[in-house]
Formats: sequence, C-alpha cells, structure tokens
Amino acid sequence: MANPVLVEVLRGNIVESRHRGSFCVMDADGHVVLSGGDIEAAVFPRSAVKAIQALPLLESGAADAFGFGNREIALACASHSGEPGHADLAKAMLAKAGLDETALECGEHWPMHQEAALDLARRGGSPTALHNNCSGKHSGFVCTCHHLGIDHRGYVGASHESQRMVRDAMETVTGAAHGEDVCGIDGCSIPTYAVPLKSLALGFARMATGVGFGQGRAVAAKRILAACMAEPFEVAGTDRMDTRLMRATGGRIFVKTGAEGVYCAAIPERGLGIAIKCDDGTTRASETSVAALLARLLGEQDALSPTLIELANPVMKNWNGIEVGRTRPVAGVF
Amino acid sequence: MANPVLVEVLRGNIVESRHRGSFCVMDADGHVVLSGGDIEAAVFPRSAVKAIQALPLLESGAADAFGFGNREIALACASHSGEPGHADLAKAMLAKAGLDETALECGEHWPMHQEAALDLARRGGSPTALHNNCSGKHSGFVCTCHHLGIDHRGYVGASHESQRMVRDAMETVTGAAHGEDVCGIDGCSIPTYAVPLKSLALGFARMATGVGFGQGRAVAAKRILAACMAEPFEVAGTDRMDTRLMRATGGRIFVKTGAEGVYCAAIPERGLGIAIKCDDGTTRASETSVAALLARLLGEQDALSPTLIELANPVMKNWNGIEVGRTRPVAGVF
Repeated sequence: MANPVLVEVLRGNIVESRHRGSFCVMDADGHVVLSGGDIEAAVFPRSAVKAIQALPLLESGAADAFGFGNREIALACASHSGEPGHADLAKAMLAKAGLDETALECGEHWPMHQEAALDLARRGGSPTALHNNCSGKHSGFVCTCHHLGIDHRGYVGASHESQRMVRDAMETVTGAAHGEDVCGIDGCSIPTYAVPLKSLALGFARMATGVGFGQGRAVAAKRILAACMAEPFEVAGTDRMDTRLMRATGGRIFVKTGAEGVYCAAIPERGLGIAIKCDDGTTRASETSVAALLARLLGEQDALSPTLIELANPVMKNWNGIEVGRTRPVAGVF
Repeated sequence: MANPVLVEVLRGNIVESRHRGSFCVMDADGHVVLSGGDIEAAVFPRSAVKAIQALPLLESGAADAFGFGNREIALACASHSGEPGHADLAKAMLAKAGLDETALECGEHWPMHQEAALDLARRGGSPTALHNNCSGKHSGFVCTCHHLGIDHRGYVGASHESQRMVRDAMETVTGAAHGEDVCGIDGCSIPTYAVPLKSLALGFARMATGVGFGQGRAVAAKRILAACMAEPFEVAGTDRMDTRLMRATGGRIFVKTGAEGVYCAAIPERGLGIAIKCDDGTTRASETSVAALLARLLGEQDALSPTLIELANPVMKNWNGIEVGRTRPVAGVF
C-alpha cells in the first residue's frame, strides 16, 4: 500500500506536486506514540544519524583530550554548508591532533551555501575536503583514531576500526541489525545501513533520555544533543532548516536532516524520538514534515507552535520576489 | 488512486527512494497510444511548453524580420544553463530590436551551470536577466512586441497582448481551456496554466505533425521543433538531459523539460506527442521516465534504443567518484 501524502506544494491555489512518506514517533521504551505509513520499511538514515555516529568521539575520551566544546561536537554532527566558519573549525579540530585536511577521506565539493562558494571563487580559491558538508564528522573520526592510537588511514572503510565503532554504536542505540546485506556507501564514502524507520525513532528517544544506556553513554548522548542545540549554526548554516529550527526552539528540540528526504529529531522533555522518510527523497517535504510533526506533538498551547507552523508552511517566491506558491503539510496527516 | 511508481533510486542493491507519476502518449488525432496513471489531472506544464509559447515569435513574422535562425529560435524555447554562449545569444537577439537586458522582466539569477556561475564570480561579475534560464524566451516575447509595434513594458502580465498571444497559442494547440481559475505565476513571472496531462501530449503530437493547424502554424511549429533538434545546446546546456538526448537522437526526437517533474516530447516520424508529470516534482524522475518511454516507443530494434536506455539508467557517484547507486525505470511500467 502506498504511504500517505504528507506534503503538498501549491502554485497559486492549485496543488502542483505531492510528497508521500512515513513517520514514526517513539518513546524510549519502544512504544509507538504516533505514526503514519510503513514504519517497518528499511531506510538509509544517511546524515540524519550523525549524532549517534559521534558517540565514539566522546566515549573514547577523544573529545575531552582535544578540548572539544559544544561547537566542535556540533560540527561533528553536521551536514554544514561549507561557510568559512565551518571549514575553519574543521581545520582547527584536525590541528588539535596535529593533522590537516589531507587526513580527510570524504572528498571535496564546493560549499553548499551559494554565497560561500562564489566568495571562494572570487578569492581565486577552490574547495578542499574541509568544505565537504561532512568534514566535521570526518574530523571527529580522524581525531578519535588518533586519540586511540589507531592508524586513521582508510578510516572510511567498513572493516576499519573507526567504522566498526560507529556501526556498534548504531546497532546498540537503534536495536537494528547492521549487516552487509543492508549496507550502502554514503556520499562521503562511509558505510550507511538501511534499517526500519521505527528503529531510528527509537534510537533518538534513547539518545534524548539515556534509557537503556550505561552511565557513560547516557552522558555522552545528552552532551551531543545539547551541543547541537546550543550551536545550531555549526550543524547546518545560514538559512538551513536544522539551524533555523534549533535556533527557534532554544534547546527544547534536536533535529538533523539526512539526504533523500530523511529527518530525525528528539524532544528531550517528552522523551520522544522522531524519524521521517519522504518516499521521493525530497528535502522540502522532510523539512515541512518535521516542523509540522513537532508542532503537533507540542500541541497548540505550546509557545513554540506558531514558529513551528510557520516553518512548516514556507512561501515560495520567484526570481522577481513575487509570491507564487507555498508548501504545506496535508491537513490531518500529522 | 495513487499514480504508479515510475522510477526507483537505488543505493547499493536497495531501493532508497521512489517516484510516482503519470505519462501519456497521444497521436495528433487525439488517440491515447500509451499511458500510465491519471492523465486527466491538471498539470502546470511550466517550461516544457516553451516551444508552443514560441509560436507567436514565428507567426508574427518577428523571427524572420530579425533574421533569427535555428540558434535564436532554439534559445527562445530554452531553459538554458546561463553559460556564456546562452547569455551572449540572448543579448544579440535583443540587440536586433535595438534593446538590451533592461527590457527583460524575468528577474536575475546566477547561471544554473555551476562552472559558469563560478567563472562569472571569478571575473568580478554578477548575474543579469540574461543569465536567467528563461532569457531566450523573454527575448522572443520582447522582440515579438517590438516587431508588432506593441509597447513591450509589462509583457509578463496576463492581460498584456504578449501573454494573450501565448495563451491563444496554448489553448488552440492543446485544446485545453486556459482560464483564470487554473492560472498560476511561473518562476519567470509569466502566467502558467494547469491543464490535463493528455492535452499536453496532444499539443506536442500536433506540433510535430501540423495536424489540425493552418498552413502557417504547421510550418512554424515544425520549424520550431527542428530548430531545437538542430541546436540542442541552446535549449539547455552542458550535461543537461535535453541537450544530451537531442544530440544523441540526431533530429529524430524533440524533448523539453519543465520544472516540478514535467517533461514533454515528440517523435515526429511517428506523429506522437508525449507528456510526463512526476507527482513529487523531481527532475531525476522525469528525465529517467522520458528516456525510458522513448526507448519503449521506438522499440528494441531501433538503433537509438541502447542510448536511450543508458540515459534512463544513470549511475550515481559520490564525492570520491565511487559508484554508490543508480536511477532506473520500474520494470514493466513503460
């Protein structure tokens, strides 16, 4: 059966495009609080689980050894826009381990933020691995290896100790098997594993509450989410949804986008974890979905609801700045 | 009922995302030759109908008066990438009417082709309306006004004579009503009207054959499609599907993409018109769909089929150039 239509895109008063998908809200005991569509289907979480993938950085003691604070930890969880602040911070993280961008194996691309890319070109520059949106995560991997005395070379490979630690964290936090049969390669070359959507929601409920974790992991998980909520610019960048939403919600909500229409989130005060997958992989649909779902969960009376509803209903303007349409959650779905 | 899944995106061997949609193949007598999904639903054709919107440029005599050849006519039908050749040609078209880019009302944006945008920034430049992907179409509108002695100012408005001519052409060619109730504003500020998908397919069958047209319109329509097939770089640009597909098919197939997952096409030798709308508005899905549908229509024995099938099955590589997935048409759908 087809997943429900979650999001509509209107031009004038006519629906021009539609996005189907599934969503799941779980508590840390594994109860489904709210869901829509198929939540058993396996989904590649992509970058939406970087906060979980950052656990070894903290649990190994590397973050403390290198003096990483909220900004560095947030960047390790980021899909950043490659703005100067992002690239500089990744460089500084590597420098703490006596390394530089030549240690990164994520590949290079022009900054995702258009103005940052154009500025780099104007200065006669060209992109390095530091501008890759995953450079913070990869700097975290490299620093963890360095701290543990492990040769970081080849750290993106599934059989390298770095990815073994990441996979262990993902398996125990989500409770889902991460076998070779569900393994794909991510944009930044590390393995990514397709797991049930509900397992991702459960994982973020656990990250937010520490339920089922040992003391060390519970502290590390909370510290990671707190760092992202404290430094939302490092997690994404100018005009990006992760940054806007976490800025607007002032430490009450954690969110992280992933490629191909994935969004993960947590509401620590409620002990809830959230996972969304838009079938067609479209970011505009996952962004509207996460904001609408968060508004629903907090309820109309919550002071944050108007802001979340505004974020869920963006206006679309054309090249002349004329309003031509809007994106909206489908009524009654969330 | 949901439209069928037309296209799948795989990461490794697992389907990561799916695209639903509808498609319609018509002959010029109005018979549905092949279809999938809801072909009665109204669709904004967006830029996929620029070839029809170019009819007044030819029928008014403006194209001949200004000495426009295949390149200029193709650019008038283009959603170009803003590469230097495109911007220069639009400028030259306007100059024929003694005008410049200040006459254009499409708005400005950086070239869609990343390298062209970066080069413009490196030279200290900034985008003008000539870099707008619609600048060729708008130059055609302005030149038509100038030739007819009509004040071109405000030519993007629905009540301006320029858009009245365009709307008349669209209505008579597609046979669909273009009322205010189905009117939206396009990215370049001109009106766009939502019409049944099957009407768009019929429109391109007529454009390719001239069936149902007077002699003048039949000649103009064939000249427009021939110009696009002869100069596919002007219609789109480097690495773009329109350009690649028309280059590969050497005058046998006309294609034109539109925003929000629309594709229109024609196979003149078969007298067929084609229209596709991917529900979610995703270009990768409409591109794979049009190539797969054309391969199906030409048949396995046709010399072009292997090329079309290759275009329908693009490989996805990551930032390190590693193959991580692919896009493919769903077996048996087309």
